[in-house]
Amino acid sequence: MKNTINLAVIGVGRIGTIHARNLAFNIQSAELKAISDTRKDALEECAAKCGEPDTYKDYHDVLSRSDLDGVVICTSTNTHAQIIKDAAKAGKHVFCEKPIALDLDEIDEALEVVEEAGIKFQVGFSRRFDPSFRRAQKRVREGEIGQPNVLKITSRDPEPPPMDYVKASGGLFVDMTIHDFDMARFMMPGKVKEVYAHGSVLIDEDIGEVGDIDTAGVLIKFEDGAIGLIDNSRKASYGYDQRLEVLGSGGKIEVSNPRETQIEVSDVEGARQDPVLHFFTERYREAYENEMEAYTEFIRSGENSPASGEDGRMAVVLADAAEMSRKENRPVELDEID
Amino acid sequence: MKNTINLAVIGVGRIGTIHARNLAFNIQSAELKAISDTRKDALEECAAKCGEPDTYKDYHDVLSRSDLDGVVICTSTNTHAQIIKDAAKAGKHVFCEKPIALDLDEIDEALEVVEEAGIKFQVGFSRRFDPSFRRAQKRVREGEIGQPNVLKITSRDPEPPPMDYVKASGGLFVDMTIHDFDMARFMMPGKVKEVYAHGSVLIDEDIGEVGDIDTAGVLIKFEDGAIGLIDNSRKASYGYDQRLEVLGSGGKIEVSNPRETQIEVSDVEGARQDPVLHFFTERYREAYENEMEAYTEFIRSGENSPASGEDGRMAVVLADAAEMSRKENRPVELDEID
Amino acid sequence: MKNTINLAVIGVGRIGTIHARNLAFNIQSAELKAISDTRKDALEECAAKCGEPDTYKDYHDVLSRSDLDGVVICTSTNTHAQIIKDAAKAGKHVFCEKPIALDLDEIDEALEVVEEAGIKFQVGFSRRFDPSFRRAQKRVREGEIGQPNVLKITSRDPEPPPMDYVKASGGLFVDMTIHDFDMARFMMPGKVKEVYAHGSVLIDEDIGEVGDIDTAGVLIKFEDGAIGLIDNSRKASYGYDQRLEVLGSGGKIEVSNPRETQIEVSDVEGARQDPVLHFFTERYREAYENEMEAYTEFIRSGENSPASGEDGRMAVVLADAAEMSRKENRPVELDEID
Amino acid sequence: MKNTINLAVIGVGRIGTIHARNLAFNIQSAELKAISDTRKDALEECAAKCGEPDTYKDYHDVLSRSDLDGVVICTSTNTHAQIIKDAAKAGKHVFCEKPIALDLDEIDEALEVVEEAGIKFQVGFSRRFDPSFRRAQKRVREGEIGQPNVLKITSRDPEPPPMDYVKASGGLFVDMTIHDFDMARFMMPGKVKEVYAHGSVLIDEDIGEVGDIDTAGVLIKFEDGAIGLIDNSRKASYGYDQRLEVLGSGGKIEVSNPRETQIEVSDVEGARQDPVLHFFTERYREAYENEMEAYTEFIRSGENSPASGEDGRMAVVLADAAEMSRKENRPVELDEID
Repeated sequence: MKNTINLAVIGVGRIGTIHARNLAFNIQSAELKAISDTRKDALEECAAKCGEPDTYKDYHDVLSRSDLDGVVICTSTNTHAQIIKDAAKAGKHVFCEKPIALDLDEIDEALEVVEEAGIKFQVGFSRRFDPSFRRAQKRVREGEIGQPNVLKITSRDPEPPPMDYVKASGGLFVDMTIHDFDMARFMMPGKVKEVYAHGSVLIDEDIGEVGDIDTAGVLIKFEDGAIGLIDNSRKASYGYDQRLEVLGSGGKIEVSNPRETQIEVSDVEGARQDPVLHFFTERYREAYENEMEAYTEFIRSGENSPASGEDGRMAVVLADAAEMSRKENRPVELDEID
Repeated sequence: MKNTINLAVIGVGRIGTIHARNLAFNIQSAELKAISDTRKDALEECAAKCGEPDTYKDYHDVLSRSDLDGVVICTSTNTHAQIIKDAAKAGKHVFCEKPIALDLDEIDEALEVVEEAGIKFQVGFSRRFDPSFRRAQKRVREGEIGQPNVLKITSRDPEPPPMDYVKASGGLFVDMTIHDFDMARFMMPGKVKEVYAHGSVLIDEDIGEVGDIDTAGVLIKFEDGAIGLIDNSRKASYGYDQRLEVLGSGGKIEVSNPRETQIEVSDVEGARQDPVLHFFTERYREAYENEMEAYTEFIRSGENSPASGEDGRMAVVLADAAEMSRKENRPVELDEID
Repeated sequence: MKNTINLAVIGVGRIGTIHARNLAFNIQSAELKAISDTRKDALEECAAKCGEPDTYKDYHDVLSRSDLDGVVICTSTNTHAQIIKDAAKAGKHVFCEKPIALDLDEIDEALEVVEEAGIKFQVGFSRRFDPSFRRAQKRVREGEIGQPNVLKITSRDPEPPPMDYVKASGGLFVDMTIHDFDMARFMMPGKVKEVYAHGSVLIDEDIGEVGDIDTAGVLIKFEDGAIGLIDNSRKASYGYDQRLEVLGSGGKIEVSNPRETQIEVSDVEGARQDPVLHFFTERYREAYENEMEAYTEFIRSGENSPASGEDGRMAVVLADAAEMSRKENRPVELDEID
Repeated sequence: MKNTINLAVIGVGRIGTIHARNLAFNIQSAELKAISDTRKDALEECAAKCGEPDTYKDYHDVLSRSDLDGVVICTSTNTHAQIIKDAAKAGKHVFCEKPIALDLDEIDEALEVVEEAGIKFQVGFSRRFDPSFRRAQKRVREGEIGQPNVLKITSRDPEPPPMDYVKASGGLFVDMTIHDFDMARFMMPGKVKEVYAHGSVLIDEDIGEVGDIDTAGVLIKFEDGAIGLIDNSRKASYGYDQRLEVLGSGGKIEVSNPRETQIEVSDVEGARQDPVLHFFTERYREAYENEMEAYTEFIRSGENSPASGEDGRMAVVLADAAEMSRKENRPVELDEID
């Protein structure tokens, strides 16, 4: 067994820098050898924060290094598929942020190259590595609450992203609900059969003007009869809201939001707790660390990807079904998409 | 202003006895003058518990008393409409348990007689009088959380009713979800436009065999764009689960379940609280008391019914739309029913 | 076995009226036959609220009735001992509000008469009948958390009583902490050996001027080595605060405060719950009902008093020890008092 | 203003390694230049975890380096005073783990040298840097709950330390309660006037045999009349228990324990949460990071030490007073010690 896994991060914006720092400092068995970004500033800033790994403007130069075991792709979505294919052909294992791509054909093509190359592939569904969601899933799957019958997921951002982001996002379902679709698949034993989705523009009219929505409700039917309900909003004024609940034949399991502190103040008006953690960098800090740990472990000795190419693909299938359902105002079976 | 309101309860099963006791002992300004039931045993048992009011086997004898201001109808659903009409014609104010009737035409006919008679009418949507739901509604309507955008209601019984009850119930939507439909109308400022409903048989196959469901998910679209999500189950092994949440533009309001005690025990496995209140007689004890208080107050001086005939009617319209949606697997607009 | 226990309430101020109403309406196996009070207004007001029992200005007329099983004494403290003795000599069972008396000799004399008469005696330590405290005690005593090592009791009123009340109260320890001393004896298996108490005047200087305190801390040593900590305040601006915690060798059990509603509101500043129940009439509503139920049951068939004369006496011994400790600023052994 | 503060850690056991890693990786403006330990294994292990700083067996070699701004002393308590003096004479700023020493004279001597040398000095009261305690203190001091009247601190370890540790610890009050004494001084505006302390051996008889205790209760009197209650135990089977509460004239502020996850499971027996964080390395992870951040900031530009020599000294004075109180079973004024 090889001791240290050598990795490089391609694309070092906000999320890329988080992964780079974790690989540099927090994952004992990994080493951050190189980072790459077309933007010189981002590259230098990240290097300074990560113990000065080698830096490259062109990711091809990363892929040509013989000492690397794998890469972590955090570039913009529209470049994912190409870099995946290039990395696979170079024999590097691949971790790629979600979504793999907005287009199913593009995804299929990339995953085919991955399979031919025989490399390991993991998609960035970070919530699977959150300590609470991960343990909840384990306990659901081990039968602690019996047969899972109803799933509820609430996923709300503290504020809408900039309009430039919205325009390139592919829409709320593939940008935001995609995490919840993956969580639904991760948590429940049954396969998704059908989706009914509805969306509204209640927060920002500009979002509506580019054809997107900012508030959504989704009803999922699983093949085994279980029912899923998801609600999303681009704006929860009280902070990042990431909750989940499964009702089983023998009980209920819930995951609630961590708060900034453990303080409670009581006065004549009642009791107050501090706000929930504001956004994903705080809420999923441990999840990101665990995710890189899992990737390193997967490269070293793992059989099954903790978040496979098929998982990445199916979440997009669900998002596409939701979008079709919303536009045609009818339930859509996954078979219609896939 | 008259000081004491004289009332009689017609039908003294479980819920009728609760109302009778409250009128006898807990509502200062009301007096329980009489009770009526076709079953001699029930009548005697209730009389003994309520300070021995006058008893009648035939409710017509109640209606012919000149000293009564109003009646409280708690008989089986299929007799509601007839008794409402008889009471209205006798000039008695009417409180009637939900649903008014299973059939919309029957409801319309009864409410027409009510209107002609000019009596006051209140339907038994007890949850409106629960201290938590009532205050939550007040605060939502007063704008504490801004514009309400998303509504979530969870409503689960601790165990399924007997099959005899299921068969006569009219189905889960009109028997159980009806409370949630009313709560949705009570809580949200916008009108309901469309309903999409789905149901499964996951708890008891016998329920499926009589054409009913035991688990359901409902997605409601309001005219103002707000979205509602309801989930129901006939069996929550951990006890009666009655929660509600509204996401508004300025915050979130939630109602959770009260527990049997305020005890928490911590050991090496974690912390444990005692179960939530087991079923509606415990959970809605105060609601039932408040409901009779409100009825008495409404008779004395109220302008608007705290739960009107129209409210009772619309909840059935919503239940019918949900049932149609489930059977045809498509969203159903209320206009199709109403 | 006799079916109905016939009772009278002597002294129908606030707490007397609570007991009278419970006996009249909520305890199936008890009947409120009579009430007595020297104040005509209080007598009439209570009678109207309790289904019009017989009324007497002089409690001796109550005691001479042959149809009564027992009495409930809720007069002012300085009259307790005399009424207890009169009732005992008349062969009536006695429930007496706490404290039995402020003076230990007076208590001893009254309890001697009780014993000679062979009547049943219960003292009004209502908190023993609170559903949470009662179950907590049962679970502690059954060993759920192992050997109890540390006891913490917090007991704070929402606001100080009127100065007239303070002056006649006997001081904070015998008026307020007495409940906590009884709770300490009720909850813990070991006997109290020594008390160290300290008090301050931090809320109202007038209280200090009559020689009393408004804030207190007490450290109790049990014979088995367990340690108890009590803190009291005459003013908790956020409402009645009644908490308890026991650390055992195998875990911890805590009792917290119930709130007015189950509502939580989240906004940019955090999450808010409604206040805790404001004072004892709300918080101990069920406790008072259970207490009369227990008294009725004790009269009918009980062997051991659920709160005996000795319990009532020992709580005063503890209060006296605390007062001596505070004044002499040293730990005081119970043997010094008793 | 200098950008990077260069530091060395002397003594790299468990806590030293935590500080070393934080300085190496998590404090942007600090650099870990060197570590020192007499144990070769510990030195190498720590170096490997901290990016391979320079290593020294003899701490004098660290102090002779001219490129260092300060040191972090994490050796065993009996060596603290000497190393502090050596470092001060070498002109290095000093952070020293608590307690400065077990003997007050030794502390005074070391602090005198610190003062003469004019270096900055910070003592390792890590809890002051816990996000919850820190914010609670800020809010108490800013008057959010009015005048603080009652302080309650609960501090319990999940299990007793090894007997070797116990023997060298100086006793529970100076080893464990010292943190609570500092917290009491940190949180409350008034000065401590008197202490009454009591201890028992309830967990492990071996602890009693070496003259120590494993369970304690302390009552603190502040000069302004405020009252403090502390309880300690060497064994809380449910995990590390670190809570605090302040009752003020205008409200109450509480700090509770964070849990391992945000999961709640409900079944027929009630609801369960996962355990609280097991011990200090998890619970105070952020506190340790903030503490080094504060030390770095203090060196760069701070006027007042966030935990001064006087703070370190006074906590030992309080511990000594508690020990005297326990042994003589009487309240002890600080003036008797100091």
